[in-house]
Amino acid sequence: MSYTLEPIGVVYSCFTTKFGIPRQSGLARAAKATIEFYPPFDQASAFSGLSQCSHLWVEFIFHEFHISEFRPRVRPPRLGGNQTLGVFATRAPNRPNRLGLSVVKLEHVEIEKGKARLHISGHDLLNGTPVIDIKPYVPYADSLPEAQNTIAPAPPALIPVRFSPQALEQCNHEGTRLGQALQPLIEQLLGQDPRPQYQTPDPARRYAMTLFDLDVAWHYWLEGDTHGVEVVSVNRVTVPKG
Amino acid sequence: MSYTLEPIGVVYSCFTTKFGIPRQSGLARAAKATIEFYPPFDQASAFSGLSQCSHLWVEFIFHEFHISEFRPRVRPPRLGGNQTLGVFATRAPNRPNRLGLSVVKLEHVEIEKGKARLHISGHDLLNGTPVIDIKPYVPYADSLPEAQNTIAPAPPALIPVRFSPQALEQCNHEGTRLGQALQPLIEQLLGQDPRPQYQTPDPARRYAMTLFDLDVAWHYWLEGDTHGVEVVSVNRVTVPKG
Repeated sequence: MSYTLEPIGVVYSCFTTKFGIPRQSGLARAAKATIEFYPPFDQASAFSGLSQCSHLWVEFIFHEFHISEFRPRVRPPRLGGNQTLGVFATRAPNRPNRLGLSVVKLEHVEIEKGKARLHISGHDLLNGTPVIDIKPYVPYADSLPEAQNTIAPAPPALIPVRFSPQALEQCNHEGTRLGQALQPLIEQLLGQDPRPQYQTPDPARRYAMTLFDLDVAWHYWLEGDTHGVEVVSVNRVTVPKG
Repeated sequence: MSYTLEPIGVVYSCFTTKFGIPRQSGLARAAKATIEFYPPFDQASAFSGLSQCSHLWVEFIFHEFHISEFRPRVRPPRLGGNQTLGVFATRAPNRPNRLGLSVVKLEHVEIEKGKARLHISGHDLLNGTPVIDIKPYVPYADSLPEAQNTIAPAPPALIPVRFSPQALEQCNHEGTRLGQALQPLIEQLLGQDPRPQYQTPDPARRYAMTLFDLDVAWHYWLEGDTHGVEVVSVNRVTVPKG
């Protein structure tokens, strides 16, 4: 017995490739996206009342992960990549049915010509992500302050993020062009330290992630026991449209 | 473009028919269920670490709802059934893709002969529900005390539940036979006032729900402005196995 899922819509997101996407929603509040819906799911009446909700569950497909067979164990990047956990103890994307689940802030329900489009923030969704359901967050049922998860008890510790003078100028310039508050977004993303945790933060190594149509490059600096990020360039590149 | 979903497991639940199931999880904490998994998803190693999590997301199919075409509006029973809302502003089961989402308490991960079975409580899942994913609750990402939902700002108000002397005796007898704390479960369920809200609580009308292999019957009593439930019988019936 199997079921057929039909995507109801698609995410248009600042995250144009996988590397650097926060590992949960809510970690980069400056991250914005829109969800557009396919007919007949785009009818404004299907969203009537939704603006009374501050947050939404987005159920989606991890469409860029392809698994040929079930693997019961995963190596979460958060645990350094050298420790395994059962896939059902994690939110790892390489899971049966490839189902993703994220709670996001609902910024605005836009209605144009009877069609709805949702503006969200604080998300962790790759551009082009197929959406299979939207549900309101119901605080009395969903918010469980007493819940415990000792695998992931707290958000990842943030590391400091600096910009080189040139990178800051580029960031301001590109942010103006895109109409986006780029600097806080980059600070929130790189503050999560997206480097694979088994790599030591080597100042000689250059890292980069794409964001919108930008290549954001950084290296790590070390000062005593602490390390941080210095953004070295924010350059426009040509990215295939998702 | 569509996706094929393969159930990974099935719910064995006290709720053998739809009427009377709480409208969200967490409302009837005495409600218990087990989730059994199909091979290869039942391997113990796929659940390694899960017992470090107090709560789980269960993603499932509303398998007893069949919709032939998309209906953008629903009439939530909670709003009395005479007010409509967009389906995406609700958790109504008659939705595209029939996807359900509930957070439940994880009581115990049982491992037997290398196969895992989950014991959960506080659920709202019909017996026989197909499970399509299990994810750990991640409090720092999922628990949002600041979230607002003015459609469903609080759990439904509870109404008082009494038992007739005969019903209480039957309840104790059947609870012992089933090895279940039946009385608190029935109190929690009927305290939600599962009657269709457009019906006035008419003392002459008899209501019944099934629970395990039991028929639980009640009527309403009125005292001034308040109403409550009196359980009048708890009888064993033959229910087809889910």
